[in-house]
Amino acid sequence: MDKEKIKTAHIISIGDELLSGHTINTNSSYIASELYDIGIKTAKIIAVPDSAEGIISELDKSLKEAEFIFITGGLGPTNDDLTKKVICAHFGFKMKFVPEVWDHIVKMFAKRGIVPHEVNKEQAMFPDAENAILLHNAAGTAPGMHFVIDGRHIFAMPGVPNEMRYLMDNEIVPLLKKEFADDLYYFDINTTGISESSIYAILSDHPKFPFGCEIAFLPQGYGVTIRIKNFGERASRKSLVDSAAVIIRSLAGDNVFTENMKSPQHELVELLISKKMKISAAESCTGGLLMNRITDVPGSSEVFSEGFVTYSNESKFKILCVNPGTLSTNGAVSQETVSEMLDGLFAETQSDIVCAVSGIAGPGGGSENKPAGTVYLGFGIRSGCKKIIEKHFFTGDRISVKEKSANKLMVEMIRYLKRNY
Amino acid sequence: MDKEKIKTAHIISIGDELLSGHTINTNSSYIASELYDIGIKTAKIIAVPDSAEGIISELDKSLKEAEFIFITGGLGPTNDDLTKKVICAHFGFKMKFVPEVWDHIVKMFAKRGIVPHEVNKEQAMFPDAENAILLHNAAGTAPGMHFVIDGRHIFAMPGVPNEMRYLMDNEIVPLLKKEFADDLYYFDINTTGISESSIYAILSDHPKFPFGCEIAFLPQGYGVTIRIKNFGERASRKSLVDSAAVIIRSLAGDNVFTENMKSPQHELVELLISKKMKISAAESCTGGLLMNRITDVPGSSEVFSEGFVTYSNESKFKILCVNPGTLSTNGAVSQETVSEMLDGLFAETQSDIVCAVSGIAGPGGGSENKPAGTVYLGFGIRSGCKKIIEKHFFTGDRISVKEKSANKLMVEMIRYLKRNY
Repeated sequence: MDKEKIKTAHIISIGDELLSGHTINTNSSYIASELYDIGIKTAKIIAVPDSAEGIISELDKSLKEAEFIFITGGLGPTNDDLTKKVICAHFGFKMKFVPEVWDHIVKMFAKRGIVPHEVNKEQAMFPDAENAILLHNAAGTAPGMHFVIDGRHIFAMPGVPNEMRYLMDNEIVPLLKKEFADDLYYFDINTTGISESSIYAILSDHPKFPFGCEIAFLPQGYGVTIRIKNFGERASRKSLVDSAAVIIRSLAGDNVFTENMKSPQHELVELLISKKMKISAAESCTGGLLMNRITDVPGSSEVFSEGFVTYSNESKFKILCVNPGTLSTNGAVSQETVSEMLDGLFAETQSDIVCAVSGIAGPGGGSENKPAGTVYLGFGIRSGCKKIIEKHFFTGDRISVKEKSANKLMVEMIRYLKRNY
Repeated sequence: MDKEKIKTAHIISIGDELLSGHTINTNSSYIASELYDIGIKTAKIIAVPDSAEGIISELDKSLKEAEFIFITGGLGPTNDDLTKKVICAHFGFKMKFVPEVWDHIVKMFAKRGIVPHEVNKEQAMFPDAENAILLHNAAGTAPGMHFVIDGRHIFAMPGVPNEMRYLMDNEIVPLLKKEFADDLYYFDINTTGISESSIYAILSDHPKFPFGCEIAFLPQGYGVTIRIKNFGERASRKSLVDSAAVIIRSLAGDNVFTENMKSPQHELVELLISKKMKISAAESCTGGLLMNRITDVPGSSEVFSEGFVTYSNESKFKILCVNPGTLSTNGAVSQETVSEMLDGLFAETQSDIVCAVSGIAGPGGGSENKPAGTVYLGFGIRSGCKKIIEKHFFTGDRISVKEKSANKLMVEMIRYLKRNY
C-alpha cells in the first residue's frame, strides 16, 4: 500500500444488544483509539444486528471504501452468533477443525472446573484457506480471524470487551504497527472553564487562523478539547501542527489544563506521583465516583490510601466531625460544610491534599435557592493549611452532575498543583 | 404509516471525536434504548466524521431504509459544526433568523454571567419551511430540528449528551409515543453464574426450543441476558413471548436474578427500599465503584448513608479495625480480611446489610497464589450476624475486574435478599 496515503478503517460492530441500546459500544471506541495512535484513520463506525444480510451488506460496502475492516461480535457458540458462518460462506471458505483451538477451549473451561459442551466445538472450526489467519485468543474461547481479500484486511474479533482488547493489544496492533503505521499526526489541547463558542471566537479572531491546519472543537466532560490536525504532505505535517499548537496554547492561556487527551484522573495521579503527594476524598453527591476514577489509574495506590462516602448528614458529622450546627444553619450543600469536610479529612488522614464534594445531583432534593445541579467543590493542601472551595451549577441529569463535579474537581486540583508545585 | 409493520430507525452520530475513539457514543445507546421501549426498532447505528459528504451520503442511504432517522452532533456554533448547514443546503431550505431562539440563547449565557458572541447568532438561524419544525432545547443553545421528507422523519439534535436527552425526553419521545408507538414486545431474562454456551445448551436441549420466538444471548458485565422476541403477527406477539419466558425462566432456574434489563444497582436499591434496609460498603480494589453505582440510582439516599474506600492496609486497620495480624498472616486479599472488614462496618455503621471487597485489580500486584483478578467479595446481614464471603477469579484488565467485582457482589446480594426476605 502507498505509505503516503492516510490509511482508512471501518469498524463494524455486530449484536442486537447494541441496537436495542442496552449495551454501549465501547469496543469501537477502543479500536478507533488504538488505530488513531498508530496513524490509521477510522472513517466510519457501524453497528448492525445479528443478521446475515446486514453483516454481509455492510462488509461489502466497507470493502469498497476502507483498507482495514474491524468486525466485533457474533463469534460466540450460540445460534445468534453468525459472524464466522456468514463471512466464510460469503468468501467461499471451507471449514476445518483445529485441534490446538479445541485444546485451548478445554483448558479454558477446566480453569473454571467445567467441561465444554458439544456446541463449543463450533468455536474450534476455522476456515481452511491461506488468506485466513488464526489469531490466538488467550482471554477467551473464540479465536480472532484475519482475512486478506484483494489487498484489504479484515479482522474479526469476539464482542466480549476484554477478549477484543486482548486480540487488539497482542495480535492486531503489533501487526499493524509493523506493517502499516503512518505518520498521521494530531495534537490535542484540553481546555476547561470556557465555552466552545468563546474559545472559537478567541481563536478565529487571530489573523492566521486556522494556522494552516484543520481545527476541531470536541466537547468533553471537563471542557472543550481543541484538536489540531493536518492531512497534507507527510513531511510537513508535524511541524505545521506543532507551530499551530504553540499559538493556540498561548491564546487559550490559563484555560489549558492537559494535552493530548490525557484524562483528568491520569494527569492527577501522575502529578501526585511525581510530587510524592497523597490524596484523600470525602464524597457526598458524587457517591464514590471521584475515588473510582482515581483508582481506575494503574499505580494509584501510590497516592491514594483511603476516602469516605459521606452521603447523609449524620455520616458527615460522625465520620468527618462536621458540626451539626453548620449542617442545620448552612445545610449540607454549602461552603461551610465542605470546609469542615476538608478539616475532617485533614484530621482523619495523613494525606497532603484532601478534597470534598457536596451538592444536589438531582432529580429530587433541590430548592429554589439551591436547585438540583448546585455543587460545592473543595480541596485543601495540608502544608500551609490552604483551602479552596468553589460553588458550581451544573446542568444535566443525575449522572451528568456527578460526572461534571468529579471532573471539575480533578481539573481544579491539577491546575493548582501545576501552578504552585 | 402501516401500524402493523415494525417501524425502523437509523441513528447517525456525527463527530470526529467518535471516530478517533476519544468519545464513547453513549448518545446512540440512549436513543436506541428509548426507541426500543416504544416499539421502534433501530436497524443501524452509524458514526461519521464532521464532513459534509459523509453526512449527506449516510442521510441519503438511511432515507431509503428507515422511517425514522436520528442525527446527533454538529449543531454547535463553530466551523466544524456542519449538520444544520449541510442538511438545509441538501434539501434546499432557506434560513431565517428566529428571535425567540436568540432570546433563549442570550438568557442561557446570562445565567453564566456572560454575553453571547456573534458566532452564536448562527444558532438562532432556522430553516424557513413548513416541514422543518423547531424543537425547543431548554438544556442548551442549539435547538433541535424535525424534518418531514417524503413521509420519513428526520430528527437532528446536539451531540452534548444532556441536551440530546432533554430533546428526546421532552420533545421527540412524546411525539413518537403519540403518533407511532407500536406493540413491539421483547422480554429479557438476566442470568448470572452460567456461561453463554451452557445456558444455550440447556435451552436448546428442550424439545420446543426456540418456543416459536427468536432467542438471543447477550453477554453482560454480570452474566448473560436471554432476550426473547417475536416479530410475527401483532396480535400474538406478547402471548408467544410470555409463554416462552415462562419455560426459559424455569430452565434457567436459580441463575435468573432480574428481568427486562434492569441493572443490578437499580434492582438492589429497589429491593432495599421495599424492605426498608440500609446498606454500607467498604471497598478496596473497586475503589468506590460499587458505591458510585448505588448512588447513580435516584432515591438511593433512602438506603445508603455512608461507606469507606479502604485502599491501603493501614486504612483497613485504622477505619475498620481489621487486625494487623490478619493482614500480615493472610494478606489484604483474603477471606479473613474481608470478614473483618464486614465486622468493621457492623461496628462503624448502623446499616442492616454491609458489603466489602478486597482483591487485586491488576495489572500489577499479583502473585502466583493470588494472580491479578483474584477478588474476595463478602456481605453480611446484621440481624442473625450472617456473613457470606466468596473468592472469585475475574479475567480482564483493571477496569473489567473492578466492574465484574461490583456487579457480582450486587447480584449476590440481590439473590440473597430475594430468597431470604
